[in-house]
Amino acid sequence: MVSPETPDVVIDRLPVYVRALARMQDEERVVVSSQELGLELGVTPAQIRKDLSYFGRFGKQGRGYNIAQLLEKLRGILGLDTEWRMALVGVGRLGQAILSYGGFGPQGFLLMKAFDSDPARVGTSDQGVTVEDVANLAESLRTSPVDIGVVAVPAGVAQEVIDVLVASGVRAILSYAPIAVHVPAGVHLRQVDPVLALQSMTFHLKREHAGGR
Amino acid sequence: MVSPETPDVVIDRLPVYVRALARMQDEERVVVSSQELGLELGVTPAQIRKDLSYFGRFGKQGRGYNIAQLLEKLRGILGLDTEWRMALVGVGRLGQAILSYGGFGPQGFLLMKAFDSDPARVGTSDQGVTVEDVANLAESLRTSPVDIGVVAVPAGVAQEVIDVLVASGVRAILSYAPIAVHVPAGVHLRQVDPVLALQSMTFHLKREHAGGR
Repeated sequence: MVSPETPDVVIDRLPVYVRALARMQDEERVVVSSQELGLELGVTPAQIRKDLSYFGRFGKQGRGYNIAQLLEKLRGILGLDTEWRMALVGVGRLGQAILSYGGFGPQGFLLMKAFDSDPARVGTSDQGVTVEDVANLAESLRTSPVDIGVVAVPAGVAQEVIDVLVASGVRAILSYAPIAVHVPAGVHLRQVDPVLALQSMTFHLKREHAGGR
Repeated sequence: MVSPETPDVVIDRLPVYVRALARMQDEERVVVSSQELGLELGVTPAQIRKDLSYFGRFGKQGRGYNIAQLLEKLRGILGLDTEWRMALVGVGRLGQAILSYGGFGPQGFLLMKAFDSDPARVGTSDQGVTVEDVANLAESLRTSPVDIGVVAVPAGVAQEVIDVLVASGVRAILSYAPIAVHVPAGVHLRQVDPVLALQSMTFHLKREHAGGR
């Protein structure tokens, strides 16, 4: 079904396609052309057709894509039709914010476990999750594994925590640490980076402020 | 210098180019072709050449881009050679985590002000910033304006807060609220959304787990 050599960067664009298609479906639209989708997402129509070609034949020449069919197919490809278990490491300010974040559950991402090194936090309960001692991270994941590790520890220990997660069989890491971290081949890593978002806005601010600063 | 009709989506890609070029510079590379850059970022060489063409002539035919020159030019275009003042609204768990986040300052993004509605938080100091009453948000920004508003309030009041920021002259909003919010034309909005990052990893997890789940 899926070509084994699909580039990661193509995969990274699929959730954005899914979101745009879902919005179009909410607007009760039925069909979209690669031109329209490209215009909305700022990607060339050729890039969209090429991206989708990795996953089969979708649009009919000159007739565009059926939104509902494409959406269902992409959701299936991305695994958005199932639930994923996550473990959080680091229950400081950021970790507590992640535990409270309302956006994960409705999308099928379930925070099942939380770990911290602070004895004052270990054993406490937050959002229905009991904080475990990070010293028991490997052991805890051995007896009840998770799919995804979410890392919210200080920069200085982020790599160490990620190494333990990987050694414990976790194959996907979402890191909030504001430093570059590394995983071995076969393990997937994404970093949450608000600075990239800020940097794309300062372009406009700079132009608009020109002369005024 | 900059074509006025540069699409937003092109601008959004520039910080990613900057990051990749900075990494290449750290590796003491001097020149990169649009093919190499495209391969690294998963974008077609034609798309890269088109994106950069909005900002002038860079590469020499057949010789690629001078990394240092392109980097300096893009940093200037993006306004990364200056400091930007930010105000945070919402000093709950997420807001406290944002105040403590180590990634903003080194990139020139300075959190100057913080606001909250909780009387117990107003007047307290966090990371050198004194929390002000959100009721005084408009007044406070009138006397000392900021460039960027960072919104970390509950979903139910996010739009209301953004409306006040916009009415107070803030022209760029970074929203952490897990809901869709809106700004008028001429105001820039980015949403921090960890779910998109998770969704791009589950593709791989689903394939690797196939048969095992």
